[in-house]
Amino acid sequence: MKAPVGIEVLAQDGEARAGLLHTPHGTVETPMFMPVGTKGSVKGLTPGDLRAAGAGVVLGNTYHLYLRPGTDLVREAGGLHSFTGWTGPMLTDSGGYQVFSLAKTRKLTEDGVRFASVYDGSTHEFTPELVTRAQEDLGADVAMVLDECPPNGASHEYHAESLRRTARWAARCKAAHTREDQALFGIVQGGLFPDLRRESLERTVGIDLPGYAVGGLSVGESRDVMLETLSTVAPELPPEKPRYFMGIGDPVGILQVIGLGVDMFDCVLPTRLARHGAALTRDGRINLKNARFRRDLGSLDEECSCETCTGYSRAYLAHLVRENELLGDRLVSLHNVTFVLALCREARGAVRAGKYEAWSAAWIQRYETAGA
Amino acid sequence: MKAPVGIEVLAQDGEARAGLLHTPHGTVETPMFMPVGTKGSVKGLTPGDLRAAGAGVVLGNTYHLYLRPGTDLVREAGGLHSFTGWTGPMLTDSGGYQVFSLAKTRKLTEDGVRFASVYDGSTHEFTPELVTRAQEDLGADVAMVLDECPPNGASHEYHAESLRRTARWAARCKAAHTREDQALFGIVQGGLFPDLRRESLERTVGIDLPGYAVGGLSVGESRDVMLETLSTVAPELPPEKPRYFMGIGDPVGILQVIGLGVDMFDCVLPTRLARHGAALTRDGRINLKNARFRRDLGSLDEECSCETCTGYSRAYLAHLVRENELLGDRLVSLHNVTFVLALCREARGAVRAGKYEAWSAAWIQRYETAGA
Repeated sequence: MKAPVGIEVLAQDGEARAGLLHTPHGTVETPMFMPVGTKGSVKGLTPGDLRAAGAGVVLGNTYHLYLRPGTDLVREAGGLHSFTGWTGPMLTDSGGYQVFSLAKTRKLTEDGVRFASVYDGSTHEFTPELVTRAQEDLGADVAMVLDECPPNGASHEYHAESLRRTARWAARCKAAHTREDQALFGIVQGGLFPDLRRESLERTVGIDLPGYAVGGLSVGESRDVMLETLSTVAPELPPEKPRYFMGIGDPVGILQVIGLGVDMFDCVLPTRLARHGAALTRDGRINLKNARFRRDLGSLDEECSCETCTGYSRAYLAHLVRENELLGDRLVSLHNVTFVLALCREARGAVRAGKYEAWSAAWIQRYETAGA
Repeated sequence: MKAPVGIEVLAQDGEARAGLLHTPHGTVETPMFMPVGTKGSVKGLTPGDLRAAGAGVVLGNTYHLYLRPGTDLVREAGGLHSFTGWTGPMLTDSGGYQVFSLAKTRKLTEDGVRFASVYDGSTHEFTPELVTRAQEDLGADVAMVLDECPPNGASHEYHAESLRRTARWAARCKAAHTREDQALFGIVQGGLFPDLRRESLERTVGIDLPGYAVGGLSVGESRDVMLETLSTVAPELPPEKPRYFMGIGDPVGILQVIGLGVDMFDCVLPTRLARHGAALTRDGRINLKNARFRRDLGSLDEECSCETCTGYSRAYLAHLVRENELLGDRLVSLHNVTFVLALCREARGAVRAGKYEAWSAAWIQRYETAGA
């Protein structure tokens, strides 16, 4: 059976790849940033905004949607596409990361993980089978296996045991998975230990899934260590399948993981920054609360074509942000998401032109030194 | 000199009127609700949203914009139209109401009123001349005179003195007003005293301004008393000039003031309700947090054509509202504003058809008894 989701690599430049991700809800270009709609909405933005911003795949989170409003309700509503109004490709995270990062109490067994809901403290248990079923209810194009994301500083022994359990869970997810219009991706763990990353990769790839993610990074380690670890994993993943790096959304990090051969990545950062008044520009990240923007009648980013940059001045946005006006969150979120999506578009062009390394180095240089 | 803003009454039915308000930024149909962008944005909505909702005139508030970001900055930005991106007609309130309702300390003299800023406690003084100048800087199509809105329960004596001062201030505003592309409207005060309302009306109309507002109502008195007082004032205003009732935005109140001959009215209610999860429908106001909407896959209002009603279910909106998602505030705000604007459109049709009283009574009956 042909996998419902697959990648077509059209160009490679060093490790960086440019291609097409085919899904039941359409084909999108890679590498690409995926905006995160944790609870079924990318904060402040409509599907129309996301389309205008150039979004390809939009994420939802199984942990949150399972607890609120309930994956059964989303299924009744016709799935997450129908419920949220986003008609393009979607991906749901399994909720593994949230179980381990949000829950104050949890109990991990071979069978699964019991945890207290972050909403009301009620007890729930996620098993590979339940999470697979929940994601089939959500009906995204891509579902993720249930994984454990070990705590920061966990030992080699802990990680070894954990990654083996995660691999066994991945096999159970695959066995439980029935939807032919949905792809189930595996997740490589192993912390910062090269031998364990290798083992996790081999075990996960051995299960034979239509795509693979690298998890457990960008969770507190330094950027150098993250990239070093990723560089031992990403290029070893099967080249004919999509590669997803979980949790990166800052412009520099995006360019770095693309350089290591990643096709897809997600993060709440662009929208979260916006809600704190921070905007992304080619000349660096700026804080709109800074006094120098109070009378700045220029646009946020001269080269950006989003509604925010073409319709409003920095002075107006700075005013909205200072006054905590809802419209400020919305307009800056729209810009930041548009910005990282446009950056990915440029990156694809650089890969296709065979000049990714020089282009990305120059982009990062300007971003980090311009001091907007 | 021809006034830059004027009304053309096309139909009258009882006291209710239907017509056209001509302004430098376009002609809009009356009677109409004016969405309020207190600080330069109608909370959560863009000018594009407001156009889609059918908005005619949009309000800004001089008190807030004077203090933040400063009317000098708005002037530098080319005025409130250019600053906010709303290209249709605008009206700015003088800030009189806010000085008297928000300030913890204030000192009223014949010259003006000193007050402590609600933002930082700094001391400011509003005089008729300053407020006129500030509104010329903002550059709305309609500016309002500086008025005093006396405290609830103020005596006949207090109101008498106050309305006379407000009339003297109105004359000073007119003398200070220079912009030929902006109309200055007067404000009738007088509390709940019929004799004082009459006196205020005579004094204000005596100044000869291009439009008149009724102020100091909808500030805590019962709806019956409000309507009774308005009924003694509105029909006595010059029929050839626009009549503006300050501060009403609930559907029933809107229909009632239209029935008394009002052409324009404003209120933050539709957007404020939305931020509390309350939506307006033909079958009454509903609270989306109510359990019965959790699994309701129908649209908010079957007959409404807004993006919210055509794109999302009650269940999805209820989920967003419960989770305090920004998108919930935005989508329900868009609906509520669209709803009251559509109600005004229907009201205009009823006036033109000569059946306003029966139509509005039936509408109110359904709204108040359907129990959506």
